Amino acid sequence: MPHIALEPHLPGITGLLEYRKETGQPIRDLTQILLRGPSTLSEAERELIATVVSNENQCKFCTTAHTAAADRLLGEHETTQSIKNDISSAALSDKIKALLQIAALTARSGKLVTEEVIGKAKAAGATDLEIHDTVLIAALFCLYNRYVDGMATALPENESYYDTLAERLVNHGYTRLPQGYDHLKK
Amino acid sequence: MPHIALEPHLPGITGLLEYRKETGQPIRDLTQILLRGPSTLSEAERELIATVVSNENQCKFCTTAHTAAADRLLGEHETTQSIKNDISSAALSDKIKALLQIAALTARSGKLVTEEVIGKAKAAGATDLEIHDTVLIAALFCLYNRYVDGMATALPENESYYDTLAERLVNHGYTRLPQGYDHLKK
Repeated sequence: MPHIALEPHLPGITGLLEYRKETGQPIRDLTQILLRGPSTLSEAERELIATVVSNENQCKFCTTAHTAAADRLLGEHETTQSIKNDISSAALSDKIKALLQIAALTARSGKLVTEEVIGKAKAAGATDLEIHDTVLIAALFCLYNRYVDGMATALPENESYYDTLAERLVNHGYTRLPQGYDHLKK
Repeated sequence: MPHIALEPHLPGITGLLEYRKETGQPIRDLTQILLRGPSTLSEAERELIATVVSNENQCKFCTTAHTAAADRLLGEHETTQSIKNDISSAALSDKIKALLQIAALTARSGKLVTEEVIGKAKAAGATDLEIHDTVLIAALFCLYNRYVDGMATALPENESYYDTLAERLVNHGYTRLPQGYDHLKK
């Protein structure tokens, strides 16, 4: 049961963003820019960063939600399974694997992001902005994971919830849905 | 040396918020609402949460900056020293000490925020909104600490920088300074 009274039909982060809309808005804005804004990283690659970090923090709601979003964007399930087991084993470019390693280290502590791991990403072609966004997306999901688990939010009653949420995240992004789209909340 | 090219005269978080202004804006907005917006927690109490979390994450820039801001708001240096050594020893109310314990646990993992520690805060008079904001401020500083250290940002050359920054945070908050206030950046 959540530590505070949240709307029971809104599991995980969704109830928290509605509980205090003033704080929900800049969190949505930041996520929309980082995960859906113009970038040389694809939306799928950015969802993989969210997945790796949420998995590192063992946040079940966020890991399942962003796995489902990445799977939908990629059109397959293998890549998310690989990165959750061993990033180096995934069928991804050296650049993305280096960025995912940076994200996983950032989740544990910013101090673990050494010159060596940054050098590896740069050697594989990562730009300064890609490195910046990787670290900031990882840091943002450390916020989300602690917010979701620190408030002891509920998990959805039905696993199919995550597919509906992923469809929303892929087609509508992270902005607040306008009136009339309320059926997509559930 | 920072992992990417940042303006050398802007240490810690300040250079990062200027490097990518589109992401800097919602981070500033969220911080302004949580640390300076209307609240039953004082600005000093909210700076203490930022201090405890940054100290837990061993982020030198953020710990020193928010210690200086809290000291300035409180008009003394003892409380910040106490909470960094042992929260229970600080000359603060039971409610604030319980909230600071929740913040320190959130910094380590959201999963450590048990019903027991929440019950202690509620028994001491903490409201749902105060608990919510404590967890979200803690989660936000986990973002900041990882962003600042994950990018290997520089520390200021002179310790007096932190007093200037604290004066700015106390008198101008976390919004972006308008043109003409640039001298306060340094």
